[in-house]
Amino acid sequence: MSSITAEGVRAAAIRIRPLAKRTPVLTSSDFDAAVGARVFFKCENLQTGGAFKIRGASNLILSIPHADLARGVVAFSSGNHAIAVAIAAQYAGAAATIVMPADAPRWKLETARAHGARIVTYDRLNESREDIAAHLLEDSGATLVPPFDHPLIVEGQGTAALELLEDLPELDALIAPVGGGGLLGGCATIVKDMRPSVRIFGVEPAGANDTFLSFQAGERRSVPMPQTIADGLRSPQPGALTFPIIRQFVEQVLVVTDDEIREAVKFLLTRLKILVEPSGAVGAAALLFGRVGRGAAGAGGIGVILSGGNMDLDQLAAYGS
Amino acid sequence: MSSITAEGVRAAAIRIRPLAKRTPVLTSSDFDAAVGARVFFKCENLQTGGAFKIRGASNLILSIPHADLARGVVAFSSGNHAIAVAIAAQYAGAAATIVMPADAPRWKLETARAHGARIVTYDRLNESREDIAAHLLEDSGATLVPPFDHPLIVEGQGTAALELLEDLPELDALIAPVGGGGLLGGCATIVKDMRPSVRIFGVEPAGANDTFLSFQAGERRSVPMPQTIADGLRSPQPGALTFPIIRQFVEQVLVVTDDEIREAVKFLLTRLKILVEPSGAVGAAALLFGRVGRGAAGAGGIGVILSGGNMDLDQLAAYGS
Repeated sequence: MSSITAEGVRAAAIRIRPLAKRTPVLTSSDFDAAVGARVFFKCENLQTGGAFKIRGASNLILSIPHADLARGVVAFSSGNHAIAVAIAAQYAGAAATIVMPADAPRWKLETARAHGARIVTYDRLNESREDIAAHLLEDSGATLVPPFDHPLIVEGQGTAALELLEDLPELDALIAPVGGGGLLGGCATIVKDMRPSVRIFGVEPAGANDTFLSFQAGERRSVPMPQTIADGLRSPQPGALTFPIIRQFVEQVLVVTDDEIREAVKFLLTRLKILVEPSGAVGAAALLFGRVGRGAAGAGGIGVILSGGNMDLDQLAAYGS
Repeated sequence: MSSITAEGVRAAAIRIRPLAKRTPVLTSSDFDAAVGARVFFKCENLQTGGAFKIRGASNLILSIPHADLARGVVAFSSGNHAIAVAIAAQYAGAAATIVMPADAPRWKLETARAHGARIVTYDRLNESREDIAAHLLEDSGATLVPPFDHPLIVEGQGTAALELLEDLPELDALIAPVGGGGLLGGCATIVKDMRPSVRIFGVEPAGANDTFLSFQAGERRSVPMPQTIADGLRSPQPGALTFPIIRQFVEQVLVVTDDEIREAVKFLLTRLKILVEPSGAVGAAALLFGRVGRGAAGAGGIGVILSGGNMDLDQLAAYGS
């Protein structure tokens, strides 16, 4: 398996063009005033499928040799990765089988189905999705599309930062959420190649702080039962491929609470007028609640990746006003 | 008073640059599939102050001669125009006095105040805001910034369509909300100059269909007590300046119900991940509910102006899921 490179991110940017949008970068003078810095939001919540995940999924799926493509693809995910794989596979003409927990949000199951994916549900408490996926792969000869720990996935996700730095070549710092580390690892790889002076921060929810703990320990640690409203960041440990990149390039892993995440979601909705899901809002929360020192950025400003926007209105209504 | 011209819109585009953002244009394959056309959303909900109103307000305020600017500006508005005037006056260094109903949403009063405006509240049932504004103008020699019926306001609002057509020179049709007609009138003026073949549609709520009635009658008609959730479109009649432009350039004035507007707000929030207030969503509602014939656009697509995003979470929560 090849390593993750800036050249790979540049190749991904070309490969994924038919499927991934170049998302807009938004600013808010209200937000800048609240945090005392110039902040640029890379809006992956406005991406195809509602999250950055289409970048990695399409980079991998559009790289599969034609003969293998006919045997289909398999993914296991309860969330945004599932939707992204369904969309990319449909575009590539590959049958997609997606293993999702039976209690995943109904609209996510339906969205994946609407893009032609076959959904295999499982009982989260009594079955292992890895076992199910392994059986599926054995039976079919399909290609696995993992959620983060694959070079093509990581390089695909890095295209978000490539676009941001093309738009804002003077950026001083970059903040991105960390789940398994695919987004942060890919972004760090390309940013350090384009502009080594950029300071890079990852952000995790306090209830899923596996990368924070790993970063402190200098080796991968796991959090067996992550508990947080940021459902996209519940992976129990950083990836084997992604963690070394994070160690090498990331200055600090910041941690925010669920209450802080809720406040950030509300700020982004009521002031910036965009819907960002809890997992996508951790970077904004870290800034709003002072986790990043005021000296982190000068005139070039801070880029924040808002990684996704998939949440339903009931969830939002529960946040109150 | 000069007339409204495409040249005036072009001049406005340069004048308002320090204050108005070039807002992004978003697309959604879900929306396109739902309506059977390619649709391009001009996102004025992502504009400074949360609505297109900053375009007209800054075009007028940045045109006031220096000597007059020192005597300040006056506006009467319960909504987005108030915030826009406060922001533009603060930037220009002019004192702003804004006459708002005492029962206007608290956050709108606070936002206008936060930008340094003096707020004069009045009792909507027992006092006339026009009388109050007239007294204020007499006392101070301030410049009135009307919400729509002024060439500089109309030309300023037209810059939204100028940007949209610069981005999408092949556009087949344009849909914009109608309150007093400033946005629609300004947009129609520039669009018909740049690309006369573009079909132009206005959209009103059924409970505030004064422009629809006027359009049918061929002369201005009024709806004395407009009733609609689209609070930005409650002006009782089209403007004296704007109505002739609408008659000249607009093909049809479409009408949508409040329930249809709510559905459009929810679609835009859950699928496009953007918060659009009811007044801003009428164009999307007209498309979603088949008010525009499927033949309205070919490959060039339909531009829809989402005019604003200022609504609070309580209001949204009441829409249900």
